Amino acid sequence: MARYDIEISEVGPRDGLQSIQTIMPLDAKKAWITAEAAAGVPEIEVGSFVPARILPQMEDTPALVAHACTIEGLQVAALVPNLRGAENAIKAGVHKISIPLSVSETHSLKNVNRTHDQMIEEAAKIVALIKTLPEDNRPFFEGSLSTAFGCTIEGPIAEDKVVDIAARLMGAGCDEVGLSDTTGYATPKHLTNLVKAIKAEVGDKNVTSLHLHNTRGMGLANVIAGLDAGITTFDASLGGLGGCPAAPGASGNIVTEDLVYMLDAMGIKTGIDLEKLFACRDIVKAALPDEELYGFTPLSGLPKGYPNGYRAQRAD
Amino acid sequence: MARYDIEISEVGPRDGLQSIQTIMPLDAKKAWITAEAAAGVPEIEVGSFVPARILPQMEDTPALVAHACTIEGLQVAALVPNLRGAENAIKAGVHKISIPLSVSETHSLKNVNRTHDQMIEEAAKIVALIKTLPEDNRPFFEGSLSTAFGCTIEGPIAEDKVVDIAARLMGAGCDEVGLSDTTGYATPKHLTNLVKAIKAEVGDKNVTSLHLHNTRGMGLANVIAGLDAGITTFDASLGGLGGCPAAPGASGNIVTEDLVYMLDAMGIKTGIDLEKLFACRDIVKAALPDEELYGFTPLSGLPKGYPNGYRAQRAD
Repeated sequence: MARYDIEISEVGPRDGLQSIQTIMPLDAKKAWITAEAAAGVPEIEVGSFVPARILPQMEDTPALVAHACTIEGLQVAALVPNLRGAENAIKAGVHKISIPLSVSETHSLKNVNRTHDQMIEEAAKIVALIKTLPEDNRPFFEGSLSTAFGCTIEGPIAEDKVVDIAARLMGAGCDEVGLSDTTGYATPKHLTNLVKAIKAEVGDKNVTSLHLHNTRGMGLANVIAGLDAGITTFDASLGGLGGCPAAPGASGNIVTEDLVYMLDAMGIKTGIDLEKLFACRDIVKAALPDEELYGFTPLSGLPKGYPNGYRAQRAD
Repeated sequence: MARYDIEISEVGPRDGLQSIQTIMPLDAKKAWITAEAAAGVPEIEVGSFVPARILPQMEDTPALVAHACTIEGLQVAALVPNLRGAENAIKAGVHKISIPLSVSETHSLKNVNRTHDQMIEEAAKIVALIKTLPEDNRPFFEGSLSTAFGCTIEGPIAEDKVVDIAARLMGAGCDEVGLSDTTGYATPKHLTNLVKAIKAEVGDKNVTSLHLHNTRGMGLANVIAGLDAGITTFDASLGGLGGCPAAPGASGNIVTEDLVYMLDAMGIKTGIDLEKLFACRDIVKAALPDEELYGFTPLSGLPKGYPNGYRAQRAD
């Protein structure tokens, strides 16, 4: 029996921590990852392989990957911006690599100073590198479509542009493409349409994951649309770490705790123990006392008597 | 052409204000209602007809109804707990009356000291009263199923219990039943199932409205489930007024601003001007400086260039 119906990928140690100024000590990061894996979270993006002068918060990613890889059954993921990052990630031993490609070329140029052509070329080089590895020791390689739902500089992003970049990433040899709502612009209808359009181009099985932010409060509504569109992996971050400074109460990524509660209450298996997951907040709070943690369910508590008498009436 | 595809019913002046200690002055309430109606909100629940010793915040409801009824095109609603309340509501001139019936009998006894039988009898008396009015001057009468998704005292509520109460309310002569997630326990799957079950019992056209809270962050996800289930009226409150004290960041009712933005961005017509709606917050803030207002979109702002280039790609 599978451990889960829907896979939760915890991205807090990467996306959450890179969005805040405070640097979390390595030991706290290790404790956090250990605790979340013990709660049943199947995949954790532990960091990104970028130069320390750009993101000092991520400097200890190699050590963290080494630690995470000792945890049995945990899929260890990391983000890489380029070939150099991928080389380091592979050296460290990650199981999954993601390269973000901003569908807004303006954003791509501003963010990593690279055109689309240059990014696709970079992805192809990473594929070539992976192919030099023994077949049973190759990391999974995902191309992540950033700003897919709109860009804070360019504004709306046309659907065919996203579809085109998705096709080019698959053409470069990525194992899969993932959709990223970097700007919190996604709405359920847009999401449904975009997933359908990309699937039509690159095939159903090559679009399975969503990376959502909660900037406009629509995160979990978008998850529902994603489930309906056949998405099976959702990124989320514990406590929604790295919230939007302009929107008090708005988490950064969608909150892992609320997401897991929603799925669990809908009778969808995540393999995650809710109480153990909520307890992970204490580790993050202790290490980052000045950062706000978001999430409704850990504070309001589970419904009285949950799950007895609830799950049944919520399943199909 | 209809003003809207989906009807928004603003319940802040009733559900929001009754949940906080501070009493909003009548003039501020009037200004709020006037501004929201001018923004295009088609229905506002302006208060409830309960004894002032129980809810002093609602004492000026008759004056507020009188004011609201001068606004052209606005449907003026009020909540009544019993026949006496209905008599006063009708005297004041409301267009719509709702009676809340808690499906958890424990909650009903604790809240209004009445059994289910007594509440159904009360509803029947209100129907009889309405029938004494000239046919062209009868308020719409809704039976509202409170604690339909679970109760903080009883825990889970069985589906057949909700269906039974819905049937009894319709049997007593209500024009319609509405579903209320008083406790913030609803999840999308449960909601879909429950709406289907009640519709099967009392007929599609007799279940059109949902009253949702955001206690566990699932409010807008539940709206998506509601839309899929054919719900056409959603209650919401400006700024999510009356939040859950246990959950900082959790609004009380779902936030009108976020709800309207989500629908608008999905290409669903609400008849509401977003900027004018957001501006209503200033009136509430000025009158209730110590109360927290919730809502993501008014703070994070609309997507760059919105709605140009967005709505099209989000519609069917």
